[in-house]
Order: sequence, then structure tokens, then C-alpha cells
Amino acid sequence: MPLVHVIRRERFSSAHRMGRPDWDQEKNSAVFGKCANLHGHGHNYVLWVTVKGRRDPETSYVVDLGVLSSVIKEHVVDHLDHRNLDIEVPWLKGKVTSTENLTVAIWDRLVAPVRALGVELHSVRVEETENNHVEYYGDL
Amino acid sequence: MPLVHVIRRERFSSAHRMGRPDWDQEKNSAVFGKCANLHGHGHNYVLWVTVKGRRDPETSYVVDLGVLSSVIKEHVVDHLDHRNLDIEVPWLKGKVTSTENLTVAIWDRLVAPVRALGVELHSVRVEETENNHVEYYGDL
Amino acid sequence: MPLVHVIRRERFSSAHRMGRPDWDQEKNSAVFGKCANLHGHGHNYVLWVTVKGRRDPETSYVVDLGVLSSVIKEHVVDHLDHRNLDIEVPWLKGKVTSTENLTVAIWDRLVAPVRALGVELHSVRVEETENNHVEYYGDL
Amino acid sequence: MPLVHVIRRERFSSAHRMGRPDWDQEKNSAVFGKCANLHGHGHNYVLWVTVKGRRDPETSYVVDLGVLSSVIKEHVVDHLDHRNLDIEVPWLKGKVTSTENLTVAIWDRLVAPVRALGVELHSVRVEETENNHVEYYGDL
Amino acid sequence: MPLVHVIRRERFSSAHRMGRPDWDQEKNSAVFGKCANLHGHGHNYVLWVTVKGRRDPETSYVVDLGVLSSVIKEHVVDHLDHRNLDIEVPWLKGKVTSTENLTVAIWDRLVAPVRALGVELHSVRVEETENNHVEYYGDL
Amino acid sequence: MPLVHVIRRERFSSAHRMGRPDWDQEKNSAVFGKCANLHGHGHNYVLWVTVKGRRDPETSYVVDLGVLSSVIKEHVVDHLDHRNLDIEVPWLKGKVTSTENLTVAIWDRLVAPVRALGVELHSVRVEETENNHVEYYGDL
Repeated sequence: MPLVHVIRRERFSSAHRMGRPDWDQEKNSAVFGKCANLHGHGHNYVLWVTVKGRRDPETSYVVDLGVLSSVIKEHVVDHLDHRNLDIEVPWLKGKVTSTENLTVAIWDRLVAPVRALGVELHSVRVEETENNHVEYYGDL
Repeated sequence: MPLVHVIRRERFSSAHRMGRPDWDQEKNSAVFGKCANLHGHGHNYVLWVTVKGRRDPETSYVVDLGVLSSVIKEHVVDHLDHRNLDIEVPWLKGKVTSTENLTVAIWDRLVAPVRALGVELHSVRVEETENNHVEYYGDL
Repeated sequence: MPLVHVIRRERFSSAHRMGRPDWDQEKNSAVFGKCANLHGHGHNYVLWVTVKGRRDPETSYVVDLGVLSSVIKEHVVDHLDHRNLDIEVPWLKGKVTSTENLTVAIWDRLVAPVRALGVELHSVRVEETENNHVEYYGDL
Repeated sequence: MPLVHVIRRERFSSAHRMGRPDWDQEKNSAVFGKCANLHGHGHNYVLWVTVKGRRDPETSYVVDLGVLSSVIKEHVVDHLDHRNLDIEVPWLKGKVTSTENLTVAIWDRLVAPVRALGVELHSVRVEETENNHVEYYGDL
Repeated sequence: MPLVHVIRRERFSSAHRMGRPDWDQEKNSAVFGKCANLHGHGHNYVLWVTVKGRRDPETSYVVDLGVLSSVIKEHVVDHLDHRNLDIEVPWLKGKVTSTENLTVAIWDRLVAPVRALGVELHSVRVEETENNHVEYYGDL
Repeated sequence: MPLVHVIRRERFSSAHRMGRPDWDQEKNSAVFGKCANLHGHGHNYVLWVTVKGRRDPETSYVVDLGVLSSVIKEHVVDHLDHRNLDIEVPWLKGKVTSTENLTVAIWDRLVAPVRALGVELHSVRVEETENNHVEYYGDL
């Protein structure tokens, strides 16, 4: 049976800002521009999770997308949606919440539970705005 | 010359939360659900501004859309983009930042400067997420 | 308080065909073309429900969109989603399932429960494909 | 039978520029900016045609959308698609090809043939870019 | 001449259900949920076909996209559009019509005719809904 | 630090036609169809630029997307937007302006300035219409 890729879209709406606690606001603003605004801003993030695997000979599914969606919600979306990424997410603590860091952190959260479904995580893509996206394929 | 409607799309990314200062957090959560989260969440808001007027006999424009865009940015988007709607926007102070209130407040901000361009504001539409939109046509 | 319009998007995926039981298949095909295919076809329908009302002075919502969504699901989407529109929907029985008939039938289903929420139904829009849409504003 | 609105989307890809032949290029550039570029630019225009009418008691269609599409193609799209709007379209001759003029001209082209289908033209909307749209409802 | 990828989008609207004839409806419902509904449901499927090849030195096309579109229509879309995938498509007979099976079957249909155009099939992507997609790159 | 991909979307609206100067119009029309129209047509091109690199340990950015956007504008978009691709772009001179040629030429323009930002160009994708896209990964 050949490999087939399956993609699931999820969404979450979160507040965040860009800033390092060891820099003063002047430096944060110089480096991160308007994204460093102290009171934060926010996005409707769009998350694309791609997994790959063989089709189950009985169901012909690579993975039940309802189950995959539940796994993504449990391990990622429920932690981020309608949250402040800088304050309320234990697994982002101490990290600047750039889309790059967010995308890699989501990958790290999903690798094991996706494997437990019998498939492999192939990529995680996070769209911050319609113009700015980040994609991660694991530690290649 | 007949009336023609012209529509301009703008976008802004902001943090906000739903909550009344005269209610405790328990009541805010009961009424506003996850939108009441104290540390806020955020959206990529999409703003559609529709104006109506006659075509200029010389240019055939109802309004120069570059000028309209500048007016919307000056009076609205520059105040909201990469801001916290609850804290940093003087003309939203004291208001719950529901999309309804936001839309009407944007209308109120735009009526006069749009008229100064020689056209009338017809509607303001704010899309909070891909599923939830609000539209306002003035005090009908 | 002025009128504000609030719009909610819902989706459903259904099978249907175009055909009149009192016409033979030859006539149905002549009139309805490929849409008359006896074994059916299907769509990812997109449903836009617009309601209008005054903002609640306490919440600033015209209507809680979570509640509106539940009402639309209970009265419409749960009956249509992953269903065959020609066979399984009592309130479409005996009707050709054109998008026109579907849209008006959804309006008729929603008028009373939307009014029970304290707002008025303004329009129902059904998008059958990215190119073909129908909109209904009630019996004007 | 109540009125129902039916909407059809069509697309065309055309070249044009903004400019008046009785102005020199310096003045055209001053007024129209980069849109006055002498060698032209172009767009993937999106055209939305809305018609209104009663459902046919036999077919339940307001209008056969395949027929409506053919009418729009015959009277509008086939004249514009892969054409230069300033040079090759007799019914735009002598007009600055602003989206406003284009939208009204399309309305004028469609009123009679749409009426010949037994329905009324309600609106014509032309999207020039994802941010700039024009809508026309006839001579209100 | 380096490799260039060319992508063509096509669409088809089809009915289907998920179910194995050797399972009773109770088991099909337990495994496939609402997708097992006996009377079917349907989708506006979006199909992305990616081919790769060298640019023709004369035309600079990798492949004429009008020709590629015709090939996809002849071998795939004309068999699926406004059809019931479970009943009317000989090359899907005996297969559960999961998006995975559909995607691989479309790949198998296209490999030879795409090669006959002088290019190689790179991937086939089928979007069942806006949230659920499948992609296939051949038997890697 | 693992590789992360960052994607930036830009847009430009240009006129062009398909045609070889060493062929007469009859042959150009035979080969390129309506795209060979002598007076040109145009598109709203969508450009996706993907770069890859390691996250900066200080900022956590792979690259500042504002800076990347400026680089793309300086080297590509400002040359193409509101221009005629066949006449006004020195680095397209002598080339048929197929989307394939355009995409590869954009790649060639961006490789060095992207590398100067400390990241590698991964792919360039140009969407000519919603149905026709080209993607290039360099000389593999």
C-alpha cells in the first residue's frame, strides 16, 4: 500500500505580542515593530496538519479525520483558542510567540499523539494572516 | 448620473475580550463564554466599507479608492491594528468590544470624513471570523 | 438604538437531484440537464443567515451568535447535513430541491425561532457552488 | 409567489489603463497614479450578476443558471475576456475604463437580455482586486 | 532546462456515502458515522493536479493548461461530476469512496495520459470540504 | 536548530500577451489561443515566496517578514505591478511571458537577495488565475 497524505484544517483565535522580557520596550519595538505593542494584538490563526500513512484495508481511511481533529483539539487548539499565547499556554512559556516558534511547538505537541493513531506527522502549517505563513516538517 | 456603490476592504489584527467591568468574572464568563477570557484573545478582522455617490464626469471615479483607503486607515485602521481594542482605543472606551459595537463605532468614525470626500457612507461590515459578521447601515 | 445586521455562516454537505416525479426521466433530463442524474449528485452547501435587531444594552450583542448557530443547526442544518435532500427531509417532501426552493424552505423554518430570539430574520443565502447562489428576503 | 434573488459569478481577464485622451500623460499620471501607466496593466475581474423573479411553478427555478450564464457570456464576458478594455470593446469606446464605468456598462448590456429571460436585473458587482469592488443597482 | 511544476484546479459535484457492502448498516454507521447515511450525501470536490516537466523551448509552456484541463476532464471529471461515486463510476466499483481511495484512483487514471502529454504527474490533491483534504504523490 | 519554512504572499496586477515575435499572429493564435490577443489581457497575479532557514536565537524569526516583503517588492513586485510584462520589464525582455517563464525569472531575481537575508529561497509560486498556478524549486 502506498503512502497517502491527509490534511486537516483547524482554527484558533488568540492574543499575543512579540517581545523578550530581557529587553526593554524600546528595544522590543525597534526589533519587532508594531507586533511588540505591550497590550497585545491578535489573529485568527489557521492551522493545517498533514499526516501520512497507508490506507486501512477495511475502512480505506489513512486516519479517521474526526479522530485526528479531536487529537489536534485536545493537544493544541483547546490550549490556544480564545487564549493569550504569551500568558496562558504552559508549553509556550518562556518563548517569544513568533509564528515560527508556535509552529514548531505545535509539531512537538502532535508528533506522539499522531503516531499513536498509526500515522506519521508530515507537516504543520500555521497561517497568521492571509500573507504570512510558516511551515515545519520536523527536524530534517 | 445614477448612484454607484464602491466597496473597499481593509484588515486589522487586534486583541480584545468580552466583559463588563461592573460584572465579576464569573458573570462575564457565564454570559460571554470563552470570549470573556481575562487575558484576551484576538482576530484578523476584515472591514468592508461601502460608499455611494455619482461618478465624477472627469475621472469616472465615484471616489479615488486610494484616497478612501487612506481615510479609513487614518480614522479607523491605524487606531485598531496591532492594538488591544479594550485598552488602547479612545473611541471604544467604556464599550464592550462586541463586533456590533465595533461596527457601529467605525460607522460613526467614518460618516463625516467620507462625506468630506463627496460621497455617502452606505454600510460598514466587520468580519470577526469566517463565520461571524456584522453589518451596519446607519440609524435607519 | 439603531438596527444592526448580524450574519452567521453554516455549512452542510448533502446529496440531491433535480427532477419531478410526474415527468419521465427523458423530460427531467431535457429540462434539468446533468442535475437530473437519477443516482444524484451533491454539494457542500454554504448557508448565510442574516438577522437584524437592536443591541442588548447589557451585552451589546444583537444576538448571541452561539445561540443563533444552535438554532440554525437544530432547525435546518441537522436535518440536511449528510442527508439526501430529496428523500430524507420531511419539510422538503414533494418539492423539487432547487436551490431556490431550498432557500425559501430554510427561511420558512427559521422565521419563528429567530423571532423567538428577539431579532428578525433579514435574509437567507444558500451557495450551491462557488458560482451559483440564491438569496431570499421573505415575501416582499 | 415571492421574489427570490439568484446570483451568478463569472470571470474575465483583461488589460486596461486609466487615462483620458484629452489629457496629456503627465496629467493622467497625476490623477490616476500607477493606473495611468501607458502600456497598461490588467486584472482577473470577478463579475457577480444578481437577478430577481418568481420561481417557475414547474421547474422551481427563478431562471436556469446555465442559460443566465450563457446570456452573460454572450453579451458581456466574451467581449471582455482576454481583451484590452480600452481598445477592443465597442460598447466601452470613449469611456475611461474605471470599474465604475465598466460596472454600469455591463448593467446596460444585461438589462434587456435578462428581462427577456423573464426576470429582472437586480445588481451587477465587479471585483477588480480582492480589495476594490463596485456595485450598481440601476438608475435609482 | 530545469523542472517546473504546473498546477491545474478542476471541480466536480458528486454524491457518495461511506459503507462496505459486507458490513450491515449498524457496523457501517459505527465506523463511518454520519458519512454512512444510506441515502448518501455529497460534496463540491476540488481537484488539484500537479505535473512537472521542462519548458518547451518554443512555447515556454511546460504543458498547455487548456490541454491538461481537457485530459483531466476526459479521464476524471466527466466521469465524476454530477454522478454518484458509489454507483456510476466503473473505475471506483468495489471501492469504498473515501477521499483517500478517490485520490489514488484519480492518480491511477491520470498517470498515463499526463505522460502522453510529455510531462510527469507529480501529485493529486482532492479537497472534500474546506477542512478535509487528501494528497497523493504516487507509490513512493 | 531545525529548518523552518516561511511563506510570504504578494500580489501584482499586470498586462501581458502570449506571442513570439518571430511568428506571425496567425501562428501565435493557433498555438496560444485567446492568450495571443495582440492588444493584450491581464491578471491579478498572486505570488507566494517560500524561504527556509533556522530561527534566530534572539528574535525567533527565520526572517523578518516585513524585510522579506520589502525585498520581494524591490526586486520583483515594483517592476511588475501595474506594468505590461512584455514591454516594460527589462529582465523579461525577449521572453514569452508564460507563467512558467515569469515564475523562473522571479526565482532568479530573488535567489541572491534572499540569501543576503541569511535564508535560502525554497520555492516561488505564481497563481495566474484561480485555476492555473506554476511552482518552481530551482534547478533540481
